[in-house]
Amino acid sequence: MTNLPINCSVAKSLNLFGERWSLLIIREAILGSSRFDEFHERIGIARNMLNTRLQKLVKNGIFDKQVSDHSARVFHYRLTQKGKELLPVIVSIMQWGDRWVQKEGDTPIVIFEASSGHAIKKMILSATNGRALGLEDIRITTGSGATKLMRARLG
Amino acid sequence: MTNLPINCSVAKSLNLFGERWSLLIIREAILGSSRFDEFHERIGIARNMLNTRLQKLVKNGIFDKQVSDHSARVFHYRLTQKGKELLPVIVSIMQWGDRWVQKEGDTPIVIFEASSGHAIKKMILSATNGRALGLEDIRITTGSGATKLMRARLG
Repeated sequence: MTNLPINCSVAKSLNLFGERWSLLIIREAILGSSRFDEFHERIGIARNMLNTRLQKLVKNGIFDKQVSDHSARVFHYRLTQKGKELLPVIVSIMQWGDRWVQKEGDTPIVIFEASSGHAIKKMILSATNGRALGLEDIRITTGSGATKLMRARLG
Repeated sequence: MTNLPINCSVAKSLNLFGERWSLLIIREAILGSSRFDEFHERIGIARNMLNTRLQKLVKNGIFDKQVSDHSARVFHYRLTQKGKELLPVIVSIMQWGDRWVQKEGDTPIVIFEASSGHAIKKMILSATNGRALGLEDIRITTGSGATKLMRARLG
């Protein structure tokens, strides 16, 4: 079964990290974890599954595997720049969950700007004038990298 | 294996939609699909797998299943408000893919504000003053809904 119509960046991205455990590992790295055992304990993922996921994330350039400064037997898995730029993905999932799956007011995690102490804003789609855009406010069209099938569909 | 440390909104959200096909179905609905056959053909997903995913997404309140105005045998799967608010999640994945997995300049899909024709801005974390924030610029702490374990860890 080929995914003919999908040369979309969403589908390609999801091939790299679009799976629950991988997203939780990335979230865990954002929270500060870097060692195998930290991911293992804090996510509650089986060691063999964690190993598979970390290997794939390293292969896909989302994590770097580095030997610890303190021991050649300890490795740190750190987000690359490519991995760090998944921050908006994780935070938009988190904010959706704060709104739709937690009890009102039960916010487990708060993110703020270190230098000012101000909380971060809710992530929204916005136009160049800054107005918040919902699904009804947008139009979607094909760009330079679209397939013929996508063009036939979206114009 | 319980996920003790994770009462995070990311984990809870991913239980509802955090899986490649489910995310592609949501993406497809954003692009305008609503019928079973449209999802089937446009995503290239097997019918039984699509059926499982759609049922779960309906059960989780992300899609509504509605009988067509034209035929009682045709159903439309439409995003609920809860589902529509996943737009920032899908768009942040798409923008990451445009940057990191497509060839430079190959943007398959362009989103713009319908009323003005202006392209949407890149989704970023920002502080109240609007400054773009990366992983190095933020601090993470526990909110009112955090577990003891999370508090012990993040303070």
